[in-house]
Amino acid sequence: MATINIGLFGLGTVGSGIVKIIGKARNAHAEIKRICVRDINKPRSIDLDPTLLTSNPDDIFNDPRINLIVEVISDAEASYRIVTRALRAGIPVVSGSKAMIARHLPELIDLQRRYDTALLYDASSCGSIPVIRNLEEYYDNDLLLEVKGILNGSSNYILSQVFDHDESYDSALKRAQQLGFAEADPSFDIDGYDSLFKLIIITVHALGVYVAPEEIFTYGISHINDYDINYAREKRVKIKLVAQVAKIGDDKFTMFVMPEFVTRSKYIYSVDDEYNGVVIRGECYDRQFMFGKGAGSLPTASSILSDVMARLHGYRYEYKKMGYRGRPAYTTDLPLKVYVRFKDTDIPSLLPFESISERYSSTGVNYVVGLIKLADLIANRPLLDTPDVFIANIPTFFTDLDK
Amino acid sequence: MATINIGLFGLGTVGSGIVKIIGKARNAHAEIKRICVRDINKPRSIDLDPTLLTSNPDDIFNDPRINLIVEVISDAEASYRIVTRALRAGIPVVSGSKAMIARHLPELIDLQRRYDTALLYDASSCGSIPVIRNLEEYYDNDLLLEVKGILNGSSNYILSQVFDHDESYDSALKRAQQLGFAEADPSFDIDGYDSLFKLIIITVHALGVYVAPEEIFTYGISHINDYDINYAREKRVKIKLVAQVAKIGDDKFTMFVMPEFVTRSKYIYSVDDEYNGVVIRGECYDRQFMFGKGAGSLPTASSILSDVMARLHGYRYEYKKMGYRGRPAYTTDLPLKVYVRFKDTDIPSLLPFESISERYSSTGVNYVVGLIKLADLIANRPLLDTPDVFIANIPTFFTDLDK
Repeated sequence: MATINIGLFGLGTVGSGIVKIIGKARNAHAEIKRICVRDINKPRSIDLDPTLLTSNPDDIFNDPRINLIVEVISDAEASYRIVTRALRAGIPVVSGSKAMIARHLPELIDLQRRYDTALLYDASSCGSIPVIRNLEEYYDNDLLLEVKGILNGSSNYILSQVFDHDESYDSALKRAQQLGFAEADPSFDIDGYDSLFKLIIITVHALGVYVAPEEIFTYGISHINDYDINYAREKRVKIKLVAQVAKIGDDKFTMFVMPEFVTRSKYIYSVDDEYNGVVIRGECYDRQFMFGKGAGSLPTASSILSDVMARLHGYRYEYKKMGYRGRPAYTTDLPLKVYVRFKDTDIPSLLPFESISERYSSTGVNYVVGLIKLADLIANRPLLDTPDVFIANIPTFFTDLDK
Repeated sequence: MATINIGLFGLGTVGSGIVKIIGKARNAHAEIKRICVRDINKPRSIDLDPTLLTSNPDDIFNDPRINLIVEVISDAEASYRIVTRALRAGIPVVSGSKAMIARHLPELIDLQRRYDTALLYDASSCGSIPVIRNLEEYYDNDLLLEVKGILNGSSNYILSQVFDHDESYDSALKRAQQLGFAEADPSFDIDGYDSLFKLIIITVHALGVYVAPEEIFTYGISHINDYDINYAREKRVKIKLVAQVAKIGDDKFTMFVMPEFVTRSKYIYSVDDEYNGVVIRGECYDRQFMFGKGAGSLPTASSILSDVMARLHGYRYEYKKMGYRGRPAYTTDLPLKVYVRFKDTDIPSLLPFESISERYSSTGVNYVVGLIKLADLIANRPLLDTPDVFIANIPTFFTDLDK
């Protein structure tokens, strides 16, 4: 590909960033030829040749000049239609739609192979941090043991306000919304789904195994209250929303998204504000820590640019690890040590703990600390949605070695 | 390449790590076919088929099975002979010899092109941290502004002992030698040359420009004394040995290796002990921070393994940025703010400061803080080797934005 002629879908926060960044990148050999938006008459904050705009996808798909589609729209259904249509037409795609990719990755991999074309999506996980590319290319061996990190900037911003700036959860959430770090409906971020989708994509490139969203324990921070916050403060730890995938022995692995009590010695302890941080642990290199801006217009767009330029050299994910001998199998059959705070819901009798090591009760609040199988947490997931309940992981078992 | 048949030169710390790691990597499709060592009768700490060993390089070069040479010997001259001979024979090479690579990179790039083969050396910079590969592939665009970091584990270990554990410099150096973090002759590490060679390699992949070692200001930590340490402590900063390359405007860049007063807010402030940490700053993604083990047998060997497996897929550095339009030019024509401590050497009159903002004198010690051109530091480099003199950078200008 001597020049990359881009058909861009989406001109929101990230799309506008891409237009700006492509303009800056003198050596990108890339040009945006057409931009498909829902409403071509909507006022835009960036300078743009208005003839670039169209609301008809066919104007991109039928444009013979266009040799790369970049798709950064927020509607997952529309994103799925665009990406699959492009792949079937043999047009390579760069996408930032994590929810769509995480849900359809097996089909998207199959389409890439069937139509001999490429789908790149490094921007979908941790914005500007090159996690996917490194897992695919650099950590392309059997030494990888664990990937663990803070993958969602919005929820991390809120928790940072709470733990570093003594703000209340509600006021921190409101401030995050005002600053544009959290959506008007923040549940995607604070209930852990954004982290979950990134974790699913990461796991495909880390261990070569796809696990569907429904099979993974996912719990966010929306139930956190002052009691939990004070409990963590007294113990001089922070609560962070952590996503992790970890090998258990040679032939199994587990993964989940869950608030966690993070001690000072851990690398992710100091990942604050809207930043993302990922720890990659391996058998021989110990820990690598990658840290950077996980979201935002320009950081995400710069990650898209890296994928665009990789296409200049014909780069594609080979999904090599999916062909590895002895790929580990997903398991939820392992105990976690958890803190569960509750008021009226009788957690100790409703949740099948293997053992309880601490019990606290008072007129206003109760909690237990105990061991429970991850599979049992999944089986009892609705119970944990009861408004008076909050659960957090206390890393101790396989995660005990973590930094 | 269906199977990688390795001819290994060197069986010291890193070489032994490679033998161990290749054994672990089930999916590497790699096998060590022959190992060339200086003394085949030397007792080895690892289990090894003795028939693998030879002391004759021809046994590797003339073995038709061998399709990759891995070279991890400490003698830079011998390393140069092996690598250039391999490239001329069209055999790809993975090397960890930073001093040799930094000195001969232009010729080594030329040989790769001329003989259509590959030389990979990610292990040469920051051990297990994938700096080179990311600069070459992921930050392959015009947005990069700066790469700055702690690239030498030995000197960082010593400074960590001093600043975090209140140890004296001499005792910390001795401990580093006992632990194997510093060589018996530690000058390569503590005088900044190890950092310099890594910085030269990084700069080729960051900005596409090669600068020879002689042209770069390099100053280490061997002259540091208790006064400097206390001065830093009083100001609540740490002294670290920092290597940096930074763009100055659109068409120039500078680079140097020098002790620096690092404030708490900087990412590299918390890079302690034998760890390495690199901050990559770009126009749109702000800062990325990569952190990990920079040296040691298995971390370095795991980086070698990543390069070995990359050869399975025919990977080579394209040195794309060397062909970029508008590559920046190296300059030393810029002022730095420095602290210079001295006793009898009359620094204020011998060094051509542009201005001096602080002077301190006493019967035992004197210092000045002032602005001086980097070019003038280079011109007066021998003066700074006077035993009573120590110089450190106080980041303020282009580095003022740093985190």
